[in-house]
Amino acid sequence: MNKILVLFDSASGNTRRMAEFVAEGARSIGDTEVRLLSVDEAKAEDVVWWDGIAVGSPTNMGILSCRLKRFWDVEMFSSWSQVDGKIGCAFSSAGGWGGGMEMACQSLLTVLMNFGFLVFGVTDYVSRDLTLHYGAVTAKDPRDEASQDACRKLGRRLAEWTAVCVHARKDEHPSLKMSERMMPG
Amino acid sequence: MNKILVLFDSASGNTRRMAEFVAEGARSIGDTEVRLLSVDEAKAEDVVWWDGIAVGSPTNMGILSCRLKRFWDVEMFSSWSQVDGKIGCAFSSAGGWGGGMEMACQSLLTVLMNFGFLVFGVTDYVSRDLTLHYGAVTAKDPRDEASQDACRKLGRRLAEWTAVCVHARKDEHPSLKMSERMMPG
Amino acid sequence: MNKILVLFDSASGNTRRMAEFVAEGARSIGDTEVRLLSVDEAKAEDVVWWDGIAVGSPTNMGILSCRLKRFWDVEMFSSWSQVDGKIGCAFSSAGGWGGGMEMACQSLLTVLMNFGFLVFGVTDYVSRDLTLHYGAVTAKDPRDEASQDACRKLGRRLAEWTAVCVHARKDEHPSLKMSERMMPG
Amino acid sequence: MNKILVLFDSASGNTRRMAEFVAEGARSIGDTEVRLLSVDEAKAEDVVWWDGIAVGSPTNMGILSCRLKRFWDVEMFSSWSQVDGKIGCAFSSAGGWGGGMEMACQSLLTVLMNFGFLVFGVTDYVSRDLTLHYGAVTAKDPRDEASQDACRKLGRRLAEWTAVCVHARKDEHPSLKMSERMMPG
Repeated sequence: MNKILVLFDSASGNTRRMAEFVAEGARSIGDTEVRLLSVDEAKAEDVVWWDGIAVGSPTNMGILSCRLKRFWDVEMFSSWSQVDGKIGCAFSSAGGWGGGMEMACQSLLTVLMNFGFLVFGVTDYVSRDLTLHYGAVTAKDPRDEASQDACRKLGRRLAEWTAVCVHARKDEHPSLKMSERMMPG
Repeated sequence: MNKILVLFDSASGNTRRMAEFVAEGARSIGDTEVRLLSVDEAKAEDVVWWDGIAVGSPTNMGILSCRLKRFWDVEMFSSWSQVDGKIGCAFSSAGGWGGGMEMACQSLLTVLMNFGFLVFGVTDYVSRDLTLHYGAVTAKDPRDEASQDACRKLGRRLAEWTAVCVHARKDEHPSLKMSERMMPG
Repeated sequence: MNKILVLFDSASGNTRRMAEFVAEGARSIGDTEVRLLSVDEAKAEDVVWWDGIAVGSPTNMGILSCRLKRFWDVEMFSSWSQVDGKIGCAFSSAGGWGGGMEMACQSLLTVLMNFGFLVFGVTDYVSRDLTLHYGAVTAKDPRDEASQDACRKLGRRLAEWTAVCVHARKDEHPSLKMSERMMPG
Repeated sequence: MNKILVLFDSASGNTRRMAEFVAEGARSIGDTEVRLLSVDEAKAEDVVWWDGIAVGSPTNMGILSCRLKRFWDVEMFSSWSQVDGKIGCAFSSAGGWGGGMEMACQSLLTVLMNFGFLVFGVTDYVSRDLTLHYGAVTAKDPRDEASQDACRKLGRRLAEWTAVCVHARKDEHPSLKMSERMMPG
C-alpha cells in the first residue's frame, strides 16, 4: 500500500484548502492511503511511517512558517537519519504573486533535503499560465480551477513517485501517461 | 545626477517589455538618467559607471539565462571589486506562475550580491494579487496594467534608493511617500 | 550617530560568539553605536530604531531557527512597512562545512528583503580559504582567527554601508580603503 | 544495470577532480555503470539514457557556470519532459568557504528539479567538520581526505538511490547500512 502524508500549517485557511486538493490528487492513484494532518496534530512518528510527504505552509516572509519550522527543528529532531530516501514536495500560498511562494516552497524543500528526502517539482502545466515547477503555489486561496488542479497534480505526482520508487510499480511512471499531461506551448 | 542602468536579456520580447517599464519607473524620479541596455550591447564599463542596476532575465530553468550569466562570469570578471556598494534589483518573466520567476530573481540577486551590490525587493503591492517582494515578475508578457505597474514600481524604487544612498537626497525615501504606496490587506 | 544592531539566536553559544565578533567589527567604524541583542530580549521597536542590522542564526535544517523566524513572523509583524531601506546582513554557524550555513544566511536575507531591507554580502576574503560573500559562516564555533575575522569584517562592512547610505559619510566607502582589503588570488 | 552519469564543468581542474571522486564512489555500488563527461563532450542523449546524474560546476558568482547553464538551456532544451523522475545531485568548488558553493549546488538542483528530477543531499558527515547536506562542496581543490570522501559519498549515495528507486534493489537502501555511516555529534 502506497502511503502519502499531507502535512500543513494554515492561518487563514488558504493552505488548508490547498492541502485538501493535494490529498485528493494523491488519492487518484490506486492503492494509496492518504492522510491529511495539520502541524498541530502531527507527531514525528507520523512522518517516519509514510512513504512520501507533501508539506504546505503559508508564505511568511518568503520562508515556511515558524510553526512548521518548529515542527522540523524540535518535534522531528530525534528522527533525523530515520527518514532518508522518502519522497517529498511542497506547496504554499502567499498574499500575491511575487510574494515569495516559490521561495517558501524552496525553503520547505531545503528542510526536507536536510532530512535526506528526495524532493521534486512538476514539469507539467495545469493551464496556459500556471505550473508547479518547484511546488504548487497560489495567490491567496486556491479559488480558481487551475490553482486547484495544481494542488491535485502535486499530490498525484507524489503518489506516482512513491509508487514507482518505493513499491516498484513501474506502470505509474508519468512518462507512460504523456497523453494525460499538459506541457507548455 | 542619479544614474540608473536597466540591463536585460530577452528571447521572446517579454523581458524586454518589462525592462522598458522598469526604465519608465526609474525616470519618474527627478534628476535621474536612465539607460536601457540589452546584454548583447552591454560592456563592463557600463555597469561600473551607474549608481544602480536593475537586471532582467527570462526565467530559464529557474535561473538567469546562460547569456546573462556569461555577461557576469566573463565580461564583468575583471571588474569584480570595482562595483561594491552599488544598488541592484531583479526582474524576470516565466512561462507561467510557479514557473520559477522568483527563483530566477533570486539567482540574479545572488550574482549581484557576489559583486558586492546592496540588493532589495519591494514591500508594496501593485494590485490585490500582485507584489514584487524579490523583484518584478510576470507570467509571459507584462500585458496587464498590474504587471506593468510592478515593473514601474521596481524602477522607481531603485531610483529612490540610489537617490537616498548615493546622492543623500533624503526626501526621496519611500517612507516619506506612504500615501502613494499600496500595502497588503 | 551610526546605529548598528546585532541580533542573534544561539543554542550552543557558537552563534553568540560570532555575534560578539560582528559587534566588535561594527565598533571599529567611528561614531557608531552598537547593540548586541539575543532574540529573547529583542522587541520590534529595537529593530525599527537602528540604521542597520546583522542577524545571526544557528543553521537549523538549512534555514534560520524557528525562534528567530518567530521573531520576524510575530513580533515584527506590525512593523512591516516601517523598516524599508534599512541595511541588513546575515551570519550563521552550522555543524560542518556543507551543512547549510550559506543557505541559512540566504533564508535570513530573504526575510530581511521581505521587510524592505537592502541586503549585502562581502567580496573580501579574510584568509586564503575563507570569505563571506553571502554572510559570515563557520563550522561549529568561530575558534580560528579567520572565522573571527570574517565576523568582524561583516560588522565593519555593515557599519560602513550605514555610514555611507544613511549618514552620507562618503569617506567610509570600502572602495576608498582597498589597501586594507584582501581580494582572492 | 544501474547507470550513473557524472557531468561536470571545470576551469581550474578542481571540479574535474571532484567529479573523479564522485565517479569512484558511484562505482563502489555493485552492477553500476559509471560515465564521466565534461560539459564540452556531453550531448542531450547522454543525459536521457542514464538513471541518475551528478552535476558539478565551479562556483561562479554563487551560481552554476554559464557553460553548464548553456548545456541545460540549449542542448537539453528539446529533451525537457523526457527525463522526469531521474535522480540528481550536485557538487561544486568555490574559491573559499563562504564563497557560494552551497548556493551553486542549490542552483544546479533548481535546474534539475525544473527538468523533473528527484534531487537529494546527504545526511551523513564525512569528518567532524564536513558534510554534504545539499551536495559535495570544497574550498578550491579536494586536496584533503575528507573532501574526497564527501565526493565519493555523494556518488555512492546517488548509485544507492538509483538502485533502490529505478531497479528495486531494496538491499541498497542506506538505512540498512547505518554501521557504515557517520552521523553528527
